[in-house]
Amino acid sequence: MYRFGVDYYPEHWPEERWPTDARLMQEAGINVVRLAEFAWARLEPRQGCFDFAWLDRALDVLGAHGIQAILGTPTASAPPWVMELFPDAFKVLPSGHRQTYGNRVNHCQTHLGFRERGKIITQAMADHYRDHPGVIGWQTDNEFGSTCYCPACQASFQDWLRRRYGSLDALNAAWGTVFWSHIYTAWEQIPVPLETGGVPNPGLALDFARFTSDVNVAFQQEHIDILRQTCPGHFITHNLMGFNAETVNYFDLARPLDFVAWDNYPRGFWNPRPEVDPAAAALGHATMRGVKNQPFWLMEEQSGAGGWHYQAVTPRPGEMRLWTYQAIAHGADGMVYFRWRTARHGTEQYWHGVLDHHGQPRRRYAELKRIGGELKRIGDRLLGAESRPEAAMLLDYDTRWAWRIQPHHEGFKYTQYYLSWFKAFHARNIGLDIAAPEADLSRYKLVVAPAVYVLSEAEAANLVSFAENGGTLILTARSGVKDEANAVVDLPLPGLLGRAAGAEVEEYDLLPGGVSVPLEFKLPEARTAEAEWWADVLAPGSAEVLATYAGQYYAGRAAVTVNRYGKGRVIYVGAFGGQPLQDVVAQWTAEQAGVKPALAAPAGVEAVTRWHGERKLLFLLNHGDAEQFVTLDGVYEDLLAGGRVEGALRLEPKGVRVLSEG
Amino acid sequence: MYRFGVDYYPEHWPEERWPTDARLMQEAGINVVRLAEFAWARLEPRQGCFDFAWLDRALDVLGAHGIQAILGTPTASAPPWVMELFPDAFKVLPSGHRQTYGNRVNHCQTHLGFRERGKIITQAMADHYRDHPGVIGWQTDNEFGSTCYCPACQASFQDWLRRRYGSLDALNAAWGTVFWSHIYTAWEQIPVPLETGGVPNPGLALDFARFTSDVNVAFQQEHIDILRQTCPGHFITHNLMGFNAETVNYFDLARPLDFVAWDNYPRGFWNPRPEVDPAAAALGHATMRGVKNQPFWLMEEQSGAGGWHYQAVTPRPGEMRLWTYQAIAHGADGMVYFRWRTARHGTEQYWHGVLDHHGQPRRRYAELKRIGGELKRIGDRLLGAESRPEAAMLLDYDTRWAWRIQPHHEGFKYTQYYLSWFKAFHARNIGLDIAAPEADLSRYKLVVAPAVYVLSEAEAANLVSFAENGGTLILTARSGVKDEANAVVDLPLPGLLGRAAGAEVEEYDLLPGGVSVPLEFKLPEARTAEAEWWADVLAPGSAEVLATYAGQYYAGRAAVTVNRYGKGRVIYVGAFGGQPLQDVVAQWTAEQAGVKPALAAPAGVEAVTRWHGERKLLFLLNHGDAEQFVTLDGVYEDLLAGGRVEGALRLEPKGVRVLSEG
Amino acid sequence: MYRFGVDYYPEHWPEERWPTDARLMQEAGINVVRLAEFAWARLEPRQGCFDFAWLDRALDVLGAHGIQAILGTPTASAPPWVMELFPDAFKVLPSGHRQTYGNRVNHCQTHLGFRERGKIITQAMADHYRDHPGVIGWQTDNEFGSTCYCPACQASFQDWLRRRYGSLDALNAAWGTVFWSHIYTAWEQIPVPLETGGVPNPGLALDFARFTSDVNVAFQQEHIDILRQTCPGHFITHNLMGFNAETVNYFDLARPLDFVAWDNYPRGFWNPRPEVDPAAAALGHATMRGVKNQPFWLMEEQSGAGGWHYQAVTPRPGEMRLWTYQAIAHGADGMVYFRWRTARHGTEQYWHGVLDHHGQPRRRYAELKRIGGELKRIGDRLLGAESRPEAAMLLDYDTRWAWRIQPHHEGFKYTQYYLSWFKAFHARNIGLDIAAPEADLSRYKLVVAPAVYVLSEAEAANLVSFAENGGTLILTARSGVKDEANAVVDLPLPGLLGRAAGAEVEEYDLLPGGVSVPLEFKLPEARTAEAEWWADVLAPGSAEVLATYAGQYYAGRAAVTVNRYGKGRVIYVGAFGGQPLQDVVAQWTAEQAGVKPALAAPAGVEAVTRWHGERKLLFLLNHGDAEQFVTLDGVYEDLLAGGRVEGALRLEPKGVRVLSEG
Repeated sequence: MYRFGVDYYPEHWPEERWPTDARLMQEAGINVVRLAEFAWARLEPRQGCFDFAWLDRALDVLGAHGIQAILGTPTASAPPWVMELFPDAFKVLPSGHRQTYGNRVNHCQTHLGFRERGKIITQAMADHYRDHPGVIGWQTDNEFGSTCYCPACQASFQDWLRRRYGSLDALNAAWGTVFWSHIYTAWEQIPVPLETGGVPNPGLALDFARFTSDVNVAFQQEHIDILRQTCPGHFITHNLMGFNAETVNYFDLARPLDFVAWDNYPRGFWNPRPEVDPAAAALGHATMRGVKNQPFWLMEEQSGAGGWHYQAVTPRPGEMRLWTYQAIAHGADGMVYFRWRTARHGTEQYWHGVLDHHGQPRRRYAELKRIGGELKRIGDRLLGAESRPEAAMLLDYDTRWAWRIQPHHEGFKYTQYYLSWFKAFHARNIGLDIAAPEADLSRYKLVVAPAVYVLSEAEAANLVSFAENGGTLILTARSGVKDEANAVVDLPLPGLLGRAAGAEVEEYDLLPGGVSVPLEFKLPEARTAEAEWWADVLAPGSAEVLATYAGQYYAGRAAVTVNRYGKGRVIYVGAFGGQPLQDVVAQWTAEQAGVKPALAAPAGVEAVTRWHGERKLLFLLNHGDAEQFVTLDGVYEDLLAGGRVEGALRLEPKGVRVLSEG
Repeated sequence: MYRFGVDYYPEHWPEERWPTDARLMQEAGINVVRLAEFAWARLEPRQGCFDFAWLDRALDVLGAHGIQAILGTPTASAPPWVMELFPDAFKVLPSGHRQTYGNRVNHCQTHLGFRERGKIITQAMADHYRDHPGVIGWQTDNEFGSTCYCPACQASFQDWLRRRYGSLDALNAAWGTVFWSHIYTAWEQIPVPLETGGVPNPGLALDFARFTSDVNVAFQQEHIDILRQTCPGHFITHNLMGFNAETVNYFDLARPLDFVAWDNYPRGFWNPRPEVDPAAAALGHATMRGVKNQPFWLMEEQSGAGGWHYQAVTPRPGEMRLWTYQAIAHGADGMVYFRWRTARHGTEQYWHGVLDHHGQPRRRYAELKRIGGELKRIGDRLLGAESRPEAAMLLDYDTRWAWRIQPHHEGFKYTQYYLSWFKAFHARNIGLDIAAPEADLSRYKLVVAPAVYVLSEAEAANLVSFAENGGTLILTARSGVKDEANAVVDLPLPGLLGRAAGAEVEEYDLLPGGVSVPLEFKLPEARTAEAEWWADVLAPGSAEVLATYAGQYYAGRAAVTVNRYGKGRVIYVGAFGGQPLQDVVAQWTAEQAGVKPALAAPAGVEAVTRWHGERKLLFLLNHGDAEQFVTLDGVYEDLLAGGRVEGALRLEPKGVRVLSEG
Repeated sequence: MYRFGVDYYPEHWPEERWPTDARLMQEAGINVVRLAEFAWARLEPRQGCFDFAWLDRALDVLGAHGIQAILGTPTASAPPWVMELFPDAFKVLPSGHRQTYGNRVNHCQTHLGFRERGKIITQAMADHYRDHPGVIGWQTDNEFGSTCYCPACQASFQDWLRRRYGSLDALNAAWGTVFWSHIYTAWEQIPVPLETGGVPNPGLALDFARFTSDVNVAFQQEHIDILRQTCPGHFITHNLMGFNAETVNYFDLARPLDFVAWDNYPRGFWNPRPEVDPAAAALGHATMRGVKNQPFWLMEEQSGAGGWHYQAVTPRPGEMRLWTYQAIAHGADGMVYFRWRTARHGTEQYWHGVLDHHGQPRRRYAELKRIGGELKRIGDRLLGAESRPEAAMLLDYDTRWAWRIQPHHEGFKYTQYYLSWFKAFHARNIGLDIAAPEADLSRYKLVVAPAVYVLSEAEAANLVSFAENGGTLILTARSGVKDEANAVVDLPLPGLLGRAAGAEVEEYDLLPGGVSVPLEFKLPEARTAEAEWWADVLAPGSAEVLATYAGQYYAGRAAVTVNRYGKGRVIYVGAFGGQPLQDVVAQWTAEQAGVKPALAAPAGVEAVTRWHGERKLLFLLNHGDAEQFVTLDGVYEDLLAGGRVEGALRLEPKGVRVLSEG
């Protein structure tokens, strides 16, 4: 059964309303809800006094309408009495201020007392619901990713470092603490990178990022241990936050889960976006599929305008449906919308759900109902289908953290740059996997590794051997710059990738905001692109020059090279630049590598494939506001409309087609 | 006698200078000064040692030149010895930092020790000056409006909440603390909304704003109690800050005062303004008249460029005079300029007065003298005249605070929006009162209630019955959204105003910065206006559609409606927009409601009326830099120039006419 | 011997590498290195345990290649063990936060324990190296200029004030603490100007700036006392930071040094600059020459892109050489580049040196080598030459601090304004000295004193007598506004300079951002310039009007005046304005005063002279990217190219000529 659901907070509403909610849900095709992930204060109103009665009743009402539940371990927001127990459990912010009560995730995740209370409530819930027929699984906590700089975390960090490095000599050497006389002679001297410490040692900062990720992963593990032991029949998942969140290494966080879920808000929240970027959502989906190499769920799919004290744009008619099928196209095997009904109270008063505050079904409910009906019909034909891109992008959290620590340039955002590479392929309907640094790349024809700034020897070897064995590898400026201690390597750049690239960075230049350098491509067709932010001046060895700079003192020098390496080839893009640069390189490289789009389609129409064995599912998604026509490459069954289709197919504005081959 | 004065600080200058000051004042027509509101350190140099001798001498010198005084209770800036007594009396800022010594209002107003010292100095002054012939009244403190987040304030806030809600159950229900498990099980758990707490629960935040206002009002009351008891022959006032200040509910602060005064700086201070907005000053005056429904004073009328570490623009020739008559036109029955002579020392070194630092009479003194001479002649004919606008705007502090807590949109400022409604009428020379939510509205033909976001049942009933009884009511988007606990109502919007509006908000949309939607008016003449920031999509019930959207997915749907309700009519403006939108609606509505301008006048000429019984005073104020001609509607006496005038009347640049009917 | 060197950190690199480094240095002509100024942790790894062996070995390796060393007293970055000893030695930031470990200059300079440790390591180094043949001198600490707001500093500040003022009465009078009742009745009440205190009393703020400067100077003196005593054969210098740094009064800091050195980064660091401003570097050089009226060194001349977490632009080919000769032209008698090789670790990982991280000689090394070769040939002919400008600019740190405290206008930066005056002359190749307020000005024909806001009687007398004795003096708006207590004077402006200026400021006006007023010059040729930010409306007494305002209410009133005074003349520029205004006035005034350029040269070509007795050295520096031709005024020896030259001389892009007269 395709799981179709909403995030539901019965505790926010009068019990008399529950049956109405359940009926409306059922009518919309809802068969699952997420419950209780913020209900600690109602489940344990006072220390050690548990109250599951209300939740049992809610499950009963829902069950009577055929709706089952995923329960959240409710530690992401602790009741006042918990925080009152442990005044030193309030987390410390980068500024050095201790957080005060009033929001969520007020707590430090290393605090023993807090963790103990978290385990107790988790155990109590697990005990109570292990055999409940209305419960099918668990979500750990909520959107992990907290960072804390408190003295207890500092001590934990020092322990973590002791385990990582063994000796202070090793740590001092790795971090190069001789610089500015920071040589530590006792573990207790090592600080956390508070803002009051100024721009920190990059090695320390990267290790603190790793430590923070590990703290989140370990906190989750405590809950997982309890749930696995007590509720062997239930699945365990967590709601991650797609591509953009980067506090936690999601590969690590995902490992012990049965599958991951994520929270997708294409219309944004703090900075309302007039336009939705379908590639950004697609990158989120691909990342979530990639962290476990398997289908995933949406645990919070946007169903209304986001908002706290500021509000965001409301989803346009058809967008919920379009986003739903986009998610499924990229691998979503479960779809839960946030939230059922907009809360009348609290910080998220304006984080809108399917229903507005008044609770009456309107436009967005009607759209939900339409989708629910469709998925009831066709959901089983989509479940478990495989995604099989021929290309992949490498995702390296060490590299992301190191970019956050040293952005190089006020105008350069690594995540934006990463997205622009993804977009260059996505716009051509070339599917991409998101792969871990140590992933087996042999199934891909083409791999893009944008600015893998921190590069371990293993990761370098993985990339090099991918090319050696016939793969086409795209590297860029600022690759192989750092070792795992975030120290600059002792080699000409791109360091360990130099031989594969067949070119050396002779020197590099930063381009201030507003300054760009035209590139001249040695390609049959004329192409226009510019270097911005950064320019590697390349000395090609075995590599051929693909583009040169047409300005600055390095005019005429190589900017982009391609090197035959082993059975494959390595493209080195020495200039950072905007979308046009990535577009030119992606287009050319995909052709060279023989990577094909899912389907040739007009701009704004996304075409994605999934596979049941040899049978292809083809999703066509019109993100635009005008109708479009797509020419099919064969005969398909139209799962939504019914019947067989071939040739030119019409897509209405925001329209969707789900086709099954043959 | 029309009171004409300056804020004077004899303690800043050598005693030998005082007679010169007094003579220059007398020559300029000064008959009153404000004294001593920052002189605590000179009045009580050490704890319990009082020194009034110098002030007595100053009063003697002034008295010899026919000048009387208003004394300030000097608690707005405490001497170092006071703050040294009570290290915990330093107020805590929203960031959680405790203020340190060095400015003014360093203190927390709930601190018992501080309050005790404030009462002691007030009592001592009152005892000393109760029968002094040179003293006519008192100003409490200075520009009330401080906020403090210290632990003592937190405890006071908890007490205040206990009194307001009675039980934690009631509080938890009102605030909806079940959201994010914030259910308080002890009063001591309740925080103040520090920035370190993140975006707070809206109910808590609104109650903290109310509490803060009450703290200021209670602090003032302690001084008033002493003064009323000891100095029954003196008036008591306070210098408020017009429309823009909003920490304190001015209706509450004004209640125990004999009259209010305010501090008016049309040329601004931190952000120097190249242009003065006469409507902004007029709104300040109207607000000050409105808080007690009676004439008011100016206690600090700008007489030089403002400035601390940054400076502002100096008043142009004629502006002091123009602003003076504008104030009187709107109800000022006393006029005190800030300050006599610019201080050579201290933070406000560049807050310029009538005289520059060197103390020699120049341009601004000459202008003061001109005004002084005029008011000596005609002041008695202006005193006590009534303002009788036919229209009013509702001013609701709960609503303002709630907008501050949840601004919705980075580009939307509630106070700017409010001002733009005021301006729409002001530009047409239609006078407006500013009315409290519970005010008797029956004397008005037209009431504008812009975005009354927090709406009590009483306020709703007041508005509805105004329309029912024949009034014309303008409502806007975001009205009736919240109950008094700052929770979103459980009704379709505009909530309790829905029936009167005859239309329902079917859904709403936020428009990101830079995005606007044209509106199409169903009016005889063509009008152009756009929705910005916000768009309610209206489902008209009994209401008629006045304008529709011409863009977005709600193109063609109703944006503005008008509903016949009882004997009156309700206009609902579902879109937020810039000045043009308010202009169109104001113009149309004023015509419908039969509200007339004071006089038809060219743009930039303000016409305002006041009344002595049936005799009209007509003020004509040319805010522009070019001469203007105004055609009178009858025969008037020209009070300033003398003689009778009728027909076309010339106004020089920045020129003023004060006319008396008949 | 001309000293040519690099900043070298052997402790950052394997000892095996040292001989390679030394050889490469020797080949490039290096004969001096700066060492150890951040090596405390290697020199005293644990309290009281000293290790000089490694440094001895490094000196040996260097010595074997003919390279001597300047050693730094390493107190600018303390090892963790030092800071662990004294938790209260961490400095307190203006926000009130205590700094935490992680950068450099973590410490408070008044902390007795820290200072003791600083003296111990300095004494130990001095003892060890007093007779070492490889050591020629010392650098104290590094780039002095730290500010601390800790309680210990507050107590020191109170002591400092007690010494300055003698009594609280005197202090209260000077600061005018009667304003806002800040009258201090105990020294302990006096705060430091923390941000939590709000905008402070200007007198207090200026004294705190003076105190901070004195703290830095006193900290340095402790090291100097030890070095003078122990190493009488060594010189002592410090690396200052040119014109822009302003925490420390450099005249005071320079006094006890043998000569000053400075750190020059024309390509900037945090905000990468697409264009280099040669005038800004020239002002830096002139300031450094001025603080002791003698030649100076470069201790850190830029040799690669700067950068911490952000990076800057890399020096263009030829720029290192161009900047080197520019420095020498302005008086540099020693040239040390920062740094030899770019660090692989630490906060300054991207502060690039001559060699990149990989250590291989590339473009920038080649350029260094070229310069090294040249200076080996011609250096001795440059050493000790005198600079003899006919014009000077006054540099008054009190005034700079007071401008920092009260910038007047968000858009106005005093240092930018100062630079624009320098630039007006520099662009005309008119050399300028930078002179102390009390300097003997009699050797100059022309002195510019831009906005000497804080003016002591002695300084006023110095300026007035300069004019009286025949000098041409340029004064500007905001001169003579303040006395030494930062109080506004009790006189019409420009206060003590009024009689010399022959004009009085009748009133003044601030011009908001974007508002400017055209000026009308009464000069034979047409000139265009505008007032921005500020306009003094002048009442000329004995002075003649040179320009009037052509806008605002003071249209037609005097803006610029010139007054014959004694044997000289005083120009008063009452308007602040951009470069064009300073250009017009500088051009006209230089002509009047008979001040001649070093040579007439095309724009972008800098011409500077130095003198050996009556023999002139002429430096021609082409800062542009195009070749230029300069017509010589006589016959010269071309020191770099060899041979004699006259007439038209070609300068390649970034090209340099060093010519010797005759």
